[in-house]
Amino acid sequence: MTRSRDVPSLVTNAREGDPRSVARLISLVENGDPALPEVAAAMAPYAGRAQVVGLTGAPGVGKSTTTNELVRALRLAGRRVGVLAVDPSSPFTGGAILGDRVRMQEHTADRGVYIRSISSRGQLGGLSAATPQAVRVLEGAGCDVVLVETVGVGQAEVEIASLADTTLVLLAPGMGDAIQAVKAGVLEIADVFVINKADRPGADNTYRDIQGMLALGERATGDWRPQVVRAVAVKGEGIDDVITAIEKHRTWLTETGELRTRREHRAAAEISALALGTLRARIGDLHEGTALPALATQVADGDIDPYAAADRLLAGLDTRRLA
Amino acid sequence: MTRSRDVPSLVTNAREGDPRSVARLISLVENGDPALPEVAAAMAPYAGRAQVVGLTGAPGVGKSTTTNELVRALRLAGRRVGVLAVDPSSPFTGGAILGDRVRMQEHTADRGVYIRSISSRGQLGGLSAATPQAVRVLEGAGCDVVLVETVGVGQAEVEIASLADTTLVLLAPGMGDAIQAVKAGVLEIADVFVINKADRPGADNTYRDIQGMLALGERATGDWRPQVVRAVAVKGEGIDDVITAIEKHRTWLTETGELRTRREHRAAAEISALALGTLRARIGDLHEGTALPALATQVADGDIDPYAAADRLLAGLDTRRLA
Repeated sequence: MTRSRDVPSLVTNAREGDPRSVARLISLVENGDPALPEVAAAMAPYAGRAQVVGLTGAPGVGKSTTTNELVRALRLAGRRVGVLAVDPSSPFTGGAILGDRVRMQEHTADRGVYIRSISSRGQLGGLSAATPQAVRVLEGAGCDVVLVETVGVGQAEVEIASLADTTLVLLAPGMGDAIQAVKAGVLEIADVFVINKADRPGADNTYRDIQGMLALGERATGDWRPQVVRAVAVKGEGIDDVITAIEKHRTWLTETGELRTRREHRAAAEISALALGTLRARIGDLHEGTALPALATQVADGDIDPYAAADRLLAGLDTRRLA
Repeated sequence: MTRSRDVPSLVTNAREGDPRSVARLISLVENGDPALPEVAAAMAPYAGRAQVVGLTGAPGVGKSTTTNELVRALRLAGRRVGVLAVDPSSPFTGGAILGDRVRMQEHTADRGVYIRSISSRGQLGGLSAATPQAVRVLEGAGCDVVLVETVGVGQAEVEIASLADTTLVLLAPGMGDAIQAVKAGVLEIADVFVINKADRPGADNTYRDIQGMLALGERATGDWRPQVVRAVAVKGEGIDDVITAIEKHRTWLTETGELRTRREHRAAAEISALALGTLRARIGDLHEGTALPALATQVADGDIDPYAAADRLLAGLDTRRLA
């Protein structure tokens, strides 16, 4: 637990680029620290400064290598980069993410890069609750680009798309049928497909399969047509093409006003999730208080009905004090 | 949809024993009619009048026959009886409950019996939302005993125990291993075990298995020790023993104050479920209103943080108008 009075100095130091202060602020977010609203308030003015790029894919497609190469290329272009490796609580991914961190150590001496794995384990709302705030901390620390990397299993890959401006889905030949890899959900969320390990046999088939499926699911004119890029991340090949595709998508987002729309939808979802969480906790607290037992006695005695009792309970729930 | 002004006359008629009015009031409850709070208010004074007996068990153990015989015996003793056959939304139980109703038709000309199947299909909260209100309607109609029958599958059997004063669990020999039948959850909820079809081979084994498990799970002194009764409902045998066990449990509930405690806990759970349902609906409405989009714009612009936005949203949520 961080004492509340530490927050202003942590924020000042993080703004000045101190990596330890950035790390401590992200820890506050990750642990749901009571100082979290204060951190959020301090970071609010920097919201939307960074381009948020999600990166997902099955285990083994080369996510960490691709992230590593994207960081290198973005740094060469003089951009400040944050990386959040989100562990979606699976016991099988913990090791992989630890591996990512070790492999990314070449960037650790670079003051323009922040790399951090965060766990969504045990948090109400999981990935969607902590990650937007961690992104804001990195924006506050001056990042131009924030890469959010998660293993594409279950719900996590859909959640990553809901918080990123641009979502990359990584595939690799020989990882099983591309049609199976590109499940219904993934086809919907991908802005850019990256066929990694494109020097391996089967890469052309994977490319054709994806293009075929995109043709089948052709969207309306004016909609974004997902890009398909080949890369061999381990050799640094195709990384510039990936960055070109990300920037092309960014231009489309800006010119169509879609960036604004997406970010407002995201903010609305985040606000109502926080509000409902507060209400649920407050109703839980009422079980400990005196109002609910008194009302329950009246209902059991037949003095009032449960609907009237629920109304009285809600009337006594002072929303101004919910914060 | 029933116009609100019909409710007082329906209530008056139901109080006077008119079965069609009772049926219409239960339909209002089942369908979540807007007049539901008015019905609840009219029925509140009669809360707790009846003894609520839950009856559950796997398909084929003879629930409907046992219910039918219990109704007959209670009527001979001059008691007014309500029966709620709750369909826990399984497509496989609909037929069985329809069968129950047909078999129970011998009671349909009796003004002292109300028989009704209700469906929990599609209702938020399922069984637990509609059934307590339907029980109150039957209490208002003057029932001394309300039997709530449901197929013991999944969550339904635990829910039935949470709304009944006394829970009967029916078993039958040859229905598979008794230890399997008496799963952990069922052993916890049963106040009375009825071994039906006790004239069949294996009944003694079932009886011994249950007694053995009860000995293993011996509760603290002063706690209720579940009764085990043998019956052959189809011949009317053992029904009086079942009624004796129910009354013995009732005496224990009253003398220990447990009846009062259970009913207050039930009322508290019902009130908070209704309150939380209202809040959830209200948060949903906010997506349609203007407050949330305006706050989302401010968050996207970096003018405020999402925690502050959630607080403002809640402050604007006037709980006095939630009813």
